[in-house]
Amino acid sequence: MMIYLDHMATTPLDPRVFDAMLPYLKEEFGNPQSVYDLGIKAREAIEKAREQVAYLINCKPSEVVFTSSGSESNNFALKGIALAKRREGKHIIVSRVDHHSVLNSARFLERLGFTVTYLPVNKYGEVDPATVEKHITKETILISIIHASSEVGTIQPIEEIAKIAKEHNVLLHTDAVASAGNIPVDVDKLGVDLLSLSAHQFYGPKGVGALFIREGVEIVPLIHGGIQEDGRRAGTENVPAIVGMGVAAELTKKELTERMAHVKRLRDKLVAELTSRIENIYYTGHPEKRLPGHASFCVEYVEGEAMLLLLATKGIYAASGSACTSKALKASPTLLSMGIPAHIAQGSIVFSFGKDNTMEDVKYIYSMNFRKS
Amino acid sequence: MMIYLDHMATTPLDPRVFDAMLPYLKEEFGNPQSVYDLGIKAREAIEKAREQVAYLINCKPSEVVFTSSGSESNNFALKGIALAKRREGKHIIVSRVDHHSVLNSARFLERLGFTVTYLPVNKYGEVDPATVEKHITKETILISIIHASSEVGTIQPIEEIAKIAKEHNVLLHTDAVASAGNIPVDVDKLGVDLLSLSAHQFYGPKGVGALFIREGVEIVPLIHGGIQEDGRRAGTENVPAIVGMGVAAELTKKELTERMAHVKRLRDKLVAELTSRIENIYYTGHPEKRLPGHASFCVEYVEGEAMLLLLATKGIYAASGSACTSKALKASPTLLSMGIPAHIAQGSIVFSFGKDNTMEDVKYIYSMNFRKS
Repeated sequence: MMIYLDHMATTPLDPRVFDAMLPYLKEEFGNPQSVYDLGIKAREAIEKAREQVAYLINCKPSEVVFTSSGSESNNFALKGIALAKRREGKHIIVSRVDHHSVLNSARFLERLGFTVTYLPVNKYGEVDPATVEKHITKETILISIIHASSEVGTIQPIEEIAKIAKEHNVLLHTDAVASAGNIPVDVDKLGVDLLSLSAHQFYGPKGVGALFIREGVEIVPLIHGGIQEDGRRAGTENVPAIVGMGVAAELTKKELTERMAHVKRLRDKLVAELTSRIENIYYTGHPEKRLPGHASFCVEYVEGEAMLLLLATKGIYAASGSACTSKALKASPTLLSMGIPAHIAQGSIVFSFGKDNTMEDVKYIYSMNFRKS
Repeated sequence: MMIYLDHMATTPLDPRVFDAMLPYLKEEFGNPQSVYDLGIKAREAIEKAREQVAYLINCKPSEVVFTSSGSESNNFALKGIALAKRREGKHIIVSRVDHHSVLNSARFLERLGFTVTYLPVNKYGEVDPATVEKHITKETILISIIHASSEVGTIQPIEEIAKIAKEHNVLLHTDAVASAGNIPVDVDKLGVDLLSLSAHQFYGPKGVGALFIREGVEIVPLIHGGIQEDGRRAGTENVPAIVGMGVAAELTKKELTERMAHVKRLRDKLVAELTSRIENIYYTGHPEKRLPGHASFCVEYVEGEAMLLLLATKGIYAASGSACTSKALKASPTLLSMGIPAHIAQGSIVFSFGKDNTMEDVKYIYSMNFRKS
């Protein structure tokens, strides 16, 4: 008995994705840089995957650079743009609810002499576009705001921020690791210049991500070396994983509407049942502008980690805070920045639905006995 | 009909490695940072792999950091040490025959204000330890010399260089991507402080490498973010690939002596036959101090790329220069630095044997008609 409700941490590999990867884990093992047919086939497989990822986010294949993870993509975007544009200015804007790979890249850049503004958010975890504009200076070279939070599900007003960034001629990056696969992600509609993706968030394999870099945007590589990825990311390409990301992207594009409706139905039912059955429970994040399969709560007087372990004994897998910090056992900076007191923030619990969850899963959860006997 | 003689570019995945990875591509898909058992199992699998890699190179498991490739490991080592020690000095020493991921990281550091010495090599591609010592200054913080060249097979005198580095209290990194799996790599015998590995060079999967960082050596992460890899490398761990690297390392440790004897026998036969049958052919690299399965040549008046394509039509897969630059179609910097004239360097061809090659493969090659009709 397992009810997996932690799709923000990672998703299982879609069997159709696995099947597509299989030949590249076996006989098609060539190095894509080799000139003979074994290498050419690997190279063609990568280029097909690049088209599939480009199709998902509505960009040109040449604007997609494969990386090893969403975290690498975020590091690449922040450090790569900062170093490429450091002669134009040294100011960067991020939000306090961004992922650790953005926040810690920003802190690293501060040590290299850059200045970083960490934007506040409202009680829903939203960044106010007017606040973004207020902090832009002549020195500002990059704004990086997360598309949707894996912790509270809130979707940021990226389109509006993009208009402001464009007016001020500042590049905009968004971390779409938690959103891609859960809501439409269209780089033109969003109006971003850079966008990070991770395959294992939408039923693709671990070990592969991508960074969208709009044509004409100059960037310094994070991994220097060979000529792979058009000289923008060195290292022998992870062919099976890249192929998997491509197929996962294509399936996502095809099935997204259906997946969204399905997880939203399950999520709405869970939220309705839990908030009516449990005392001192708070639904965190924006009530509407949020990922459709995402339900996050804080329960007063209860420790999130303890809830997780209790749920795990009943076969229910959920999260508390983000996967990258859950072991750190500290109150989440995202929740604190939303004005949630530390003692309540520690009672954080996140259920994130996936395409294979069922209404029976939801019923199993809300039918549990929540009261101490 | 395929005779794969390009094991320096990449190796096929050992079926035993694939079998070990399989559960982590299917039901064991948990995020290693999750607190429930699906996460714990993934975490335990990573720690087992860390022990296996540590066993291969004779270090502590805590000294192994998993990365996404040998190139990432090299970038991490050079940039991470440079940034960690920049207040102690800003001088770095590398060799001209190092991999592009070392050389281009060094060039990047020059743009950040570091000074780099690019050491010359002799006609065998060897770095002279006395030359290393001559270039050490009070400002020197790091020496990075490749363990063995994938292009010419030459093994560098790392032990002697390590003694000099230690005397001068300078850290030593070696890129063992081409050597690990082909000769013994023992970090204590070598005396290095940092060492780079890549799994797909020893029948493990693509998309995973490691950096050995000796206990007590401080390093700045290349990928900032979450708490993975003890805070030294952020991003959701590529569990199946890491598991694969562990098993590949264990098999390598167990079978290395046998594999070395096997490929040496094939290599020696090929070298003897080709040098006696072909006019104007030069065996490049050191005649003895070289990787046992590695045969590299320059053929005068012939273009390397043309030879490769001709061989490929006969089902023989070989290389010309390194995989990361072969598409660039320039004479190899490694060969030029050894004093080989450009017009001869362009006739470079490399045969690298693996454990599954046979004496029949060798015979098939040297029995070809090399003369124009």
